[in-house]
Amino acid sequence: MSNFDRDPILLTPGPLTTSLATKSAMLRDWGSWDSRFNAVTARVRERLTAIVNAEATHVCVPMQGSGTFSVEAAVNTIVPRDGHVLVLINGAYGRRMARLTEMMGRRLSTFETADDVPTTAADVARALDADASITHVGLIHCETSTGILNPLPEIAAAVATRGKSLIVDAMSSFGAIAIDAREVAFDALVAASGKCIEGPPGMGFVFVRRSVLERCAGNSTSLALDLYDQWAYMEKTTQWRYTPPTHVVVALDAALIQFEAQGGQPARLARYTANCETLVTGMGELGFRPFLDSHIQAPIIVTFHAPADSKYAFKEFYERVRDKGFILYPGKLTQLETFRVGCIGAIGPDEMRHAVNAVYDTLREMGIRQAAPAAVAAAIKAA
Amino acid sequence: MSNFDRDPILLTPGPLTTSLATKSAMLRDWGSWDSRFNAVTARVRERLTAIVNAEATHVCVPMQGSGTFSVEAAVNTIVPRDGHVLVLINGAYGRRMARLTEMMGRRLSTFETADDVPTTAADVARALDADASITHVGLIHCETSTGILNPLPEIAAAVATRGKSLIVDAMSSFGAIAIDAREVAFDALVAASGKCIEGPPGMGFVFVRRSVLERCAGNSTSLALDLYDQWAYMEKTTQWRYTPPTHVVVALDAALIQFEAQGGQPARLARYTANCETLVTGMGELGFRPFLDSHIQAPIIVTFHAPADSKYAFKEFYERVRDKGFILYPGKLTQLETFRVGCIGAIGPDEMRHAVNAVYDTLREMGIRQAAPAAVAAAIKAA
Repeated sequence: MSNFDRDPILLTPGPLTTSLATKSAMLRDWGSWDSRFNAVTARVRERLTAIVNAEATHVCVPMQGSGTFSVEAAVNTIVPRDGHVLVLINGAYGRRMARLTEMMGRRLSTFETADDVPTTAADVARALDADASITHVGLIHCETSTGILNPLPEIAAAVATRGKSLIVDAMSSFGAIAIDAREVAFDALVAASGKCIEGPPGMGFVFVRRSVLERCAGNSTSLALDLYDQWAYMEKTTQWRYTPPTHVVVALDAALIQFEAQGGQPARLARYTANCETLVTGMGELGFRPFLDSHIQAPIIVTFHAPADSKYAFKEFYERVRDKGFILYPGKLTQLETFRVGCIGAIGPDEMRHAVNAVYDTLREMGIRQAAPAAVAAAIKAA
Repeated sequence: MSNFDRDPILLTPGPLTTSLATKSAMLRDWGSWDSRFNAVTARVRERLTAIVNAEATHVCVPMQGSGTFSVEAAVNTIVPRDGHVLVLINGAYGRRMARLTEMMGRRLSTFETADDVPTTAADVARALDADASITHVGLIHCETSTGILNPLPEIAAAVATRGKSLIVDAMSSFGAIAIDAREVAFDALVAASGKCIEGPPGMGFVFVRRSVLERCAGNSTSLALDLYDQWAYMEKTTQWRYTPPTHVVVALDAALIQFEAQGGQPARLARYTANCETLVTGMGELGFRPFLDSHIQAPIIVTFHAPADSKYAFKEFYERVRDKGFILYPGKLTQLETFRVGCIGAIGPDEMRHAVNAVYDTLREMGIRQAAPAAVAAAIKAA
């Protein structure tokens, strides 16, 4: 890659590879007070809202910072000071939502399953029925720690039936997995610019039910992360409350235009699904085994078991694959040695196939003959 | 401007006009986990720290979001839960620091002077001597609401003598006005990417005294805005804790390279001073009067009184000047009608002169014969 000063393909779940059209939009400077920039902001908010069919019920509130800033803003704005949040955990992002909820002083309960076990609607129903003081439920739609997809529609129904409020971290699913606000009840759903819309990182956004947000003044203990204040100011002035990341906003606008031209969410899901299948099939042929069963695997990011071969070391493996032009992602499991490969970004099955080939070449260079994880390798040896 | 699809010159205090070299750096995608990107982050932190000669005493902690996010992070991280912050106010940014301090639940006192009156070291000494429970002092170095410069070195000495901790919002002064950490005692000093270093907006950074930061674990009530956690993670891993705005970071790196090549802070101050003088002289010839006395005017942004002429209306004036290629900035004073013109960004005296000419043409188009404010116009009429 470095020989010809070419960008690597990012097989990471955001930042990811963006198109040249998206990056080129950043070659302009915009006045953040100017009506032309504010028209871009308005257009971006409208386009984002349309993706989840939430025009009639929710408002889109953009927020500076990474996706986590928007998750924290959602919890701090939506949950009253005396609220009680149940956070559903099966990975690092669930744990993060729990931690930020606790740090801001809201009452917290958690329900945790193993990293490879989706939370079910029955789990949520049981937890809510056991503690009537719970007011809000926090859910990670696709846990990027592993790539597991939690059943949002079913969980949303269980929460709504019990009159509770749902906050969804849809960071890595929004734009790729179908979410329809007319059918799935949520009070807040959070995502970010640098994920499946394929913009650059630097801002998040929260779809908040308008009737809920209107009652949220004074909840937040943070000025910068107060979604109500951000929304009220934007409604009044059309401007962002504090300096927006102007270049990121216009690049997200460009990315949304391409998103729509390419066929919107269904087309994006189809491309990512093809990416994921190409990856899993190709890696499978090399002996790699995915961590998750295929029926709970979102086509966003795939966790693979590390090879059992003693010649394997992630750092060398990573660097050799990178030098061939592909950036892999480390694992996030504490108990098992794994690595991750993202399927999202401005890439298609061709790039995934090239990546698999680069992994193949790397295994040969490292003298790794067995890419299967320990258990599989043992079974093969025994056979 | 729109005829030839050319960018306007931003006479705004951030976002501002950036160079093509800076914007071009955003034409690449970077993996936020990759060592090559982390080397950029490390280089940016080092270069920023060198600008205030703080290598021996302070660490530079970058933070996602606008400058306000970094101000809030500084207060929330540096001030213990039972701390008591005295915020010095002579404009909107001082009021903002007071508000965020109060919202996060820290005890707040304020000392306020008029928008055109700098806070003095004697004011601060008196306030601190009157209330021994104050632990921290918050100061805005250059108040962008008007462009007034507060005497940082003298105030810092008054605070240090009394054994208190100083938090400085140096958003619009850092990189242009000399600040030397070896001579000026501060525990935290905050600035952002899209100001006098002339990068794109999207991240801030805080120089925190290392010996202070080491004791700040557990202070913050916000996870996203916890500078201690951000710093500790970065020290351990070389990475940002949560997704960084990669394109903004590499553009800031490019801007810093240009900053140094152009002669660093002294050269930047000289250019902005020439910009400011060209502006004030040229606008003065048209009859415009600055709001501030020249000895308290920082060469960052100039507030002008609106013309007394009844044909003047800011919206039309702004749009006509914009259509000639220059983006002005509205006033931020509630009592007086004013507008502001920024002197910072990748622009020189030529651009300032062109802007003055565009203002002249606009006055003629609008039939405004008297650009002086009401008091001056009355005096001329009486003479």
